[in-house]
Amino acid sequence: MGRTSTARDRLRDSACELLHTRGYAAVGVAEICVRADVRKGSFYHFFESKQALTIEVIDTHWQAQRTGWRELLTGPESALERLQRLIGWLVETQRQGWQETGRVDGCLLGNLAIELSNQEAAVQQRLTAAFAEQTELVHAALADGVRDGSVAPGYADRATARAVVAQIEGAVLLAKLAGGVGSLDDLWPHVRRLVTVPPTDESTGN
Amino acid sequence: MGRTSTARDRLRDSACELLHTRGYAAVGVAEICVRADVRKGSFYHFFESKQALTIEVIDTHWQAQRTGWRELLTGPESALERLQRLIGWLVETQRQGWQETGRVDGCLLGNLAIELSNQEAAVQQRLTAAFAEQTELVHAALADGVRDGSVAPGYADRATARAVVAQIEGAVLLAKLAGGVGSLDDLWPHVRRLVTVPPTDESTGN
Repeated sequence: MGRTSTARDRLRDSACELLHTRGYAAVGVAEICVRADVRKGSFYHFFESKQALTIEVIDTHWQAQRTGWRELLTGPESALERLQRLIGWLVETQRQGWQETGRVDGCLLGNLAIELSNQEAAVQQRLTAAFAEQTELVHAALADGVRDGSVAPGYADRATARAVVAQIEGAVLLAKLAGGVGSLDDLWPHVRRLVTVPPTDESTGN
Repeated sequence: MGRTSTARDRLRDSACELLHTRGYAAVGVAEICVRADVRKGSFYHFFESKQALTIEVIDTHWQAQRTGWRELLTGPESALERLQRLIGWLVETQRQGWQETGRVDGCLLGNLAIELSNQEAAVQQRLTAAFAEQTELVHAALADGVRDGSVAPGYADRATARAVVAQIEGAVLLAKLAGGVGSLDDLWPHVRRLVTVPPTDESTGN
């Protein structure tokens, strides 16, 4: 973000970048202020604490992401095709980050969930809400898929939707560990197995 | 560990507990020494740095875990039953931790992978080796499963084995976020979908 944005926006954007790259405990208020070009004395004029800023980062990030999730899961295509489009976009986001930085920073919400869930109740609450929304959006798509025939009946429950979100998070974790996004090409075929029965020629294959 | 163990063992055990509960950046050498009842001045007699201690924690933890993985994936049962046994054990480990502490601390290796992969090359290297071994152990079981008929041909490749590991990590992440292990009861049915085609009565359901 340019320096024409407000100090508050710069603090939030700088924190988002630093939290995504390095995590919560590793980043202090002083470093966020330097990155944002805001005097440390001004920080507490805008935010009560690093935790309060982190909650705003989570809300802002998920609000933007949610728009993408909703748009990609909406349309005239089959529910399975819409789900594939969502996965493609999530993978592309990781690929772009990797191309820009040479790193895979992974999923900001997943990173913070791993680091803070058992330590910061207010952060955990916000992350829980975001992941619950992700699960509900996938769940609704799966229900559509049963109606349009692209998702197998019995594969459209809430637990399956949560398993899709889990597969995304786990695959992104392994990509982050690998420092590359190649393995994410397999994410869609694996998500598809969680929600559909394979075609007959595959199930009888030998 | 009791105080009869050596200072070096106490440092490693204390670090393991603190890293698992709170993460790497949030825990300092001083706190590890207090927990271990070792004078801070002695720390550097045993370990060059917090990073070096962390690498020893990872190696010790994975060596113990690996024994479990190998034993559970070996036996006269079908490969699918052996895989189910492994998943059951992993879930039980999380459940025991939750019962003892009221928290879900998740997977030590996954937590550190998320926090450090893009920052600490030496740690990333050790974690990469551990996750590669997990993937290979699952891959070998899947290959057995094709031979004994419990795993569908075409579902026994290395990418599928990695998807199983991803499913475990993602599900544990969501359990950690939820602060409870209830959702892990669904882990096995979802892993099974990744490696087998469903029985005919399920695939024709409506």
